[in-house]
Amino acid sequence: MKINQIVLASRPAGLPAADNFRTEEVELNEPGADSVLLKPLFISVDPYMRGRMNDAKSYVPPFQIDKPIDGGVVATVVESKSTLLKAGDTVVGNMPWATRCVERADRLRKVDIQSIPAGYYLGVLGMPGLTAYVGLAEIAKPIAGETVVVSGAAGAVGIIVGQIAKIYGCRVIGIAGTDEKCRMLKDEFGFDGAVNYKTSQHLKQDIALLCPAGVDIYFDNVGGDISDAVIANINFHARIALCGQIALYNSTSQPVGPRILPMLLTRSVMVKGFINGDYKAIFPDAYKNLTAWIKDGKIKYKQTVIHGFDKLPEAFLGLFSGANEGKMLVEIS
Amino acid sequence: MKINQIVLASRPAGLPAADNFRTEEVELNEPGADSVLLKPLFISVDPYMRGRMNDAKSYVPPFQIDKPIDGGVVATVVESKSTLLKAGDTVVGNMPWATRCVERADRLRKVDIQSIPAGYYLGVLGMPGLTAYVGLAEIAKPIAGETVVVSGAAGAVGIIVGQIAKIYGCRVIGIAGTDEKCRMLKDEFGFDGAVNYKTSQHLKQDIALLCPAGVDIYFDNVGGDISDAVIANINFHARIALCGQIALYNSTSQPVGPRILPMLLTRSVMVKGFINGDYKAIFPDAYKNLTAWIKDGKIKYKQTVIHGFDKLPEAFLGLFSGANEGKMLVEIS
Repeated sequence: MKINQIVLASRPAGLPAADNFRTEEVELNEPGADSVLLKPLFISVDPYMRGRMNDAKSYVPPFQIDKPIDGGVVATVVESKSTLLKAGDTVVGNMPWATRCVERADRLRKVDIQSIPAGYYLGVLGMPGLTAYVGLAEIAKPIAGETVVVSGAAGAVGIIVGQIAKIYGCRVIGIAGTDEKCRMLKDEFGFDGAVNYKTSQHLKQDIALLCPAGVDIYFDNVGGDISDAVIANINFHARIALCGQIALYNSTSQPVGPRILPMLLTRSVMVKGFINGDYKAIFPDAYKNLTAWIKDGKIKYKQTVIHGFDKLPEAFLGLFSGANEGKMLVEIS
Repeated sequence: MKINQIVLASRPAGLPAADNFRTEEVELNEPGADSVLLKPLFISVDPYMRGRMNDAKSYVPPFQIDKPIDGGVVATVVESKSTLLKAGDTVVGNMPWATRCVERADRLRKVDIQSIPAGYYLGVLGMPGLTAYVGLAEIAKPIAGETVVVSGAAGAVGIIVGQIAKIYGCRVIGIAGTDEKCRMLKDEFGFDGAVNYKTSQHLKQDIALLCPAGVDIYFDNVGGDISDAVIANINFHARIALCGQIALYNSTSQPVGPRILPMLLTRSVMVKGFINGDYKAIFPDAYKNLTAWIKDGKIKYKQTVIHGFDKLPEAFLGLFSGANEGKMLVEIS
């Protein structure tokens, strides 16, 4: 069968561009024993994928030149050679950016899309939701009454972090890049305050005004100047859950900034860089709580859905200009 | 009774100097009920005191202008109005820099100076020893076979950190500021390697050579360029026990350097700034283990002793030029 796939054409220096990707037609073999033929419904684009475009040691192996990009996908089973799945089932898993693909059934997780929107399995009930839960509940361990600041607050992870923090009884301040996102965080997602880092004249001061008791927990998706401004307001015994550094992913030289170790020392701060994979033991609890919170209406979710397989590179690039509110997804028709 | 005391004459901008201190003669009142008159034997000078010379929020209150400097002292009880102590007892506690002082007996700890040298209660069995134990054993949690790097390795805390790490079965590399200190770390204290940061042409590379498997634990007393070089070699799941930043204590402007959050993120590193006071629950274990290790010869200790009350400012200033090997103390005759 002929299919289309999107491969890494070249590695970007700095901000990625459309020409780092290439669509090509290839022949797909029939599924063998224990495998299934899949048709994608939603393909996820995520900031961490920027790191995989570099040929660098990290927690996930780099994408290979001329090989398909891969990531989180929700797909329909078209044909099954496995007893685990049947045609018509919906599954989530790691798959290539391709119009059809073949995967081993035991590497996929069957999901219910009757009571939960399919895209949620790439968001609040997928990697971003687990990330928010692990970083906040497991690493930062919020205490009722504490102040939580989230950068990238209007993104796939940030809006969940803020809502979990509210469930824990915390004051929550979001940092985002448009007034509309700030309004959304407060009006739709229950944040106590939000600041637009692009229009703020003095971010450190604006955060201080919104956090009169200081910052007890900082959930960092962004890094750079934004983190400098938050860390300048950090409290004794604060915890920083280090989830992303999207402001720096496209740096072409070593980013430089104020040294933070003296502040971390004098305030007895804990910083933890983390990836979900190290916290698999708490995934069952995370899924259970997140699902219950969604069904109880305590967590709402937001998706920015782009339509069409060919739009995958554009959707991915949009992550770096803040084009998304909540989870960025590509729906495949 | 007339006594001499050393007060803070002015707050330093940058490196402190002798004229930030002033010796003055004052009248000392007789001890009242439950108090004792004390004569100091050893007075401690410690890097953390630099922070107290600033009028800044930190984990200990700042010294006050025209008021005596205070810190760790081992003293002899000259006269007692308390049932807890008698004349001739030796005690350790927080006391002013003064030739005699009066303190409440219940704020002092009686110590045995027959089997343990008196100065050790300001070093390996005092704040520096507890600091080494808390940061390494409790925060970094070493595993046999891991590589531990210590900055300020030849200082009061560093030489203990390295020896505890060896007890845990780790490979230990020290960073110090003279060839003599590096030799001492290896020949006298069992370090597996040491690097002189002042003569190294490429510290990052020299650390990489001494740590072929990367750095699992970094015990940081120093900060600045030295920490940059260590963090450039940091391993996945490394732990950084953040104990001091002596390289930056005298900065007069915001120190700037390479941003470290991206590295902490992609390597899933944990950083914890800490002070002993938050770990009082483990002090009994710490004292017990440190005492046993000293008696077993597993931990040796080093002191640089300066003689004479008037030398206190000079001894303190020497900490910032690396004048000490091990614990810097002033012995009062």
